[in-house]
Amino acid sequence: MPQTKQRVSSFAKQLLSEWKRLQLSIDGRVVVAVSGGADSTALLLALDELIRLKQLNIDPIVAHLNHGLRGEKSREDADWVASLVGQLGYELVIGQGDVRQRVADTKDNLEQAARRVRYEFLIDVANNSRSTLILTAHTKDDQAETLLLRLIRGSGTDGLSGIAPVRYLNRDLRLIRPLLWAERSETEDYCRIRDIEFRLDEMNEDATFSRVRVRKTLIPLLKSFNPRAVKSLARAADLLREDMAALAVQAEELLSRASVTNSSLSVDLLRSAPTVIRRRALRRWIERERGNLRRIELIHLLSIEKLLAGDKGGRIAELPGGSFVERRKGLLTFYGEKG
Amino acid sequence: MPQTKQRVSSFAKQLLSEWKRLQLSIDGRVVVAVSGGADSTALLLALDELIRLKQLNIDPIVAHLNHGLRGEKSREDADWVASLVGQLGYELVIGQGDVRQRVADTKDNLEQAARRVRYEFLIDVANNSRSTLILTAHTKDDQAETLLLRLIRGSGTDGLSGIAPVRYLNRDLRLIRPLLWAERSETEDYCRIRDIEFRLDEMNEDATFSRVRVRKTLIPLLKSFNPRAVKSLARAADLLREDMAALAVQAEELLSRASVTNSSLSVDLLRSAPTVIRRRALRRWIERERGNLRRIELIHLLSIEKLLAGDKGGRIAELPGGSFVERRKGLLTFYGEKG
Repeated sequence: MPQTKQRVSSFAKQLLSEWKRLQLSIDGRVVVAVSGGADSTALLLALDELIRLKQLNIDPIVAHLNHGLRGEKSREDADWVASLVGQLGYELVIGQGDVRQRVADTKDNLEQAARRVRYEFLIDVANNSRSTLILTAHTKDDQAETLLLRLIRGSGTDGLSGIAPVRYLNRDLRLIRPLLWAERSETEDYCRIRDIEFRLDEMNEDATFSRVRVRKTLIPLLKSFNPRAVKSLARAADLLREDMAALAVQAEELLSRASVTNSSLSVDLLRSAPTVIRRRALRRWIERERGNLRRIELIHLLSIEKLLAGDKGGRIAELPGGSFVERRKGLLTFYGEKG
Repeated sequence: MPQTKQRVSSFAKQLLSEWKRLQLSIDGRVVVAVSGGADSTALLLALDELIRLKQLNIDPIVAHLNHGLRGEKSREDADWVASLVGQLGYELVIGQGDVRQRVADTKDNLEQAARRVRYEFLIDVANNSRSTLILTAHTKDDQAETLLLRLIRGSGTDGLSGIAPVRYLNRDLRLIRPLLWAERSETEDYCRIRDIEFRLDEMNEDATFSRVRVRKTLIPLLKSFNPRAVKSLARAADLLREDMAALAVQAEELLSRASVTNSSLSVDLLRSAPTVIRRRALRRWIERERGNLRRIELIHLLSIEKLLAGDKGGRIAELPGGSFVERRKGLLTFYGEKG
């Protein structure tokens, strides 16, 4: 039916080809996170278009979180999403999250707390609906902003690879970002084509969020150097992600070759590996043995690497929280409890 | 002589420890590029301090290029450098470069032309004086600026690793950046401690240079997010350089294993390698066979990779300028002239 094919919009077509590139199933239940902003509204509308044109057979459940940060405005957002989803005829879950309470209960700032509350909600919705995918509408602009924020804050190189299009949250649940190919202007244009007046996402306007300041001050300055700066940054994140993934695979291989017993690694194999591979393998090993990487810094990896030098055993490297690594008989052995 | 040791300034001490870390010879002739700005003046003064305190036994020859971009001001810079170097008692070469002529003769912009003219001059001075090292005074700030410029312009990940502390210009001549550990404020402070009023480098004030705009607008904005942003960016460049170097080594190893004859590579070996390693190996191979990588884009690497798929030979991938790669009998073979 060539006529049907012609009716698919260019935006939805690109979403479909990303869907295929990521090898996602064309049926099944999926959670779609919708704030009411242009990006997530465009994602929902494009999925709807592909479903109606029988290009996808998925069964979306829309998840909207009321962060409770702006009272009346937040309720209006929820009402707007409810009305749109009602018109489209999909299932909707509206969650209530108390982000301010979370800030009070933890050391997180507002931005981190909002993110955590949001993802916990999405995972809940996925579990309750037995969905295997959660879709969020991150764009190339989000990718560029993430790369910049991590650069400014001094992330390691793995952090510079930004937002992954697919991330496993657990064995059965994946977090998917199927709009990373799109710029924000494209999601806005698509909403306009569909004649839907998206909401201004409250989280996208609060200048106390450093992400919002990156968007409103830093990105425009970068564009004054190169109008295609967002594309350049997003491409850099993609290329870095590929490079970092290759190094991560090699680190896993090294770890598996060097694992003599459950908690012991071969000194010789670690020693002969390139530094950037060995450090990644040691981090993965500590994470596995200790349960997490909290408070593990470069200095701890360096102290473990010192154990690898020379022939002498019987030396130890201490880790934060009381666990330690000992070199003895050509092995590094981890001692401590899982955190 | 503990007294002598105590007299070494902290700045010079850090330079000396970088000198040792880079395993540079403590004697021999070295070319020191001095514009008269704070960074290069601090480098010269700190080398002088280490020489006088017998921590280094090198024989510096100072090279100053008059870019001829600002007439009287450029001549004053040259006079100022001549006077300082005369007081210190070192040899001096002042070069005249016609950057505007170079811009007229080439497609380079002013900034690129200035850089090319400068490095050609430095290499000339090194060759004429039989020096094996050229020292330039790039700092952490330059490193951060370079990373940002390359990100904005859309460099590949190898470009993101920024300024290398050591780079071979040819077999016998290395370009050394021994001040990458220092921030610009530290070079200025050190000049003040030595009571030397450095010049404002003309090239550092011209806002038509994008590097200068990065320094004057972008870096201050980044510091408003994180006061340590320059350190974060410079550290990211260092970490990326280590990661990229590991991938480059693996690409060289793959290239050498896959090289069946002079101009042919094994399809099987290329096919089984990780993409990011294979692409780097293919780039190196093209550079070797073709003489350079001019106009080679990702699309050409992709078309060569297409040849690797399936069992069929007799197919070719064209490269810009008339050369091409053919798959036949399990080999990729390069055809074309060295450019």
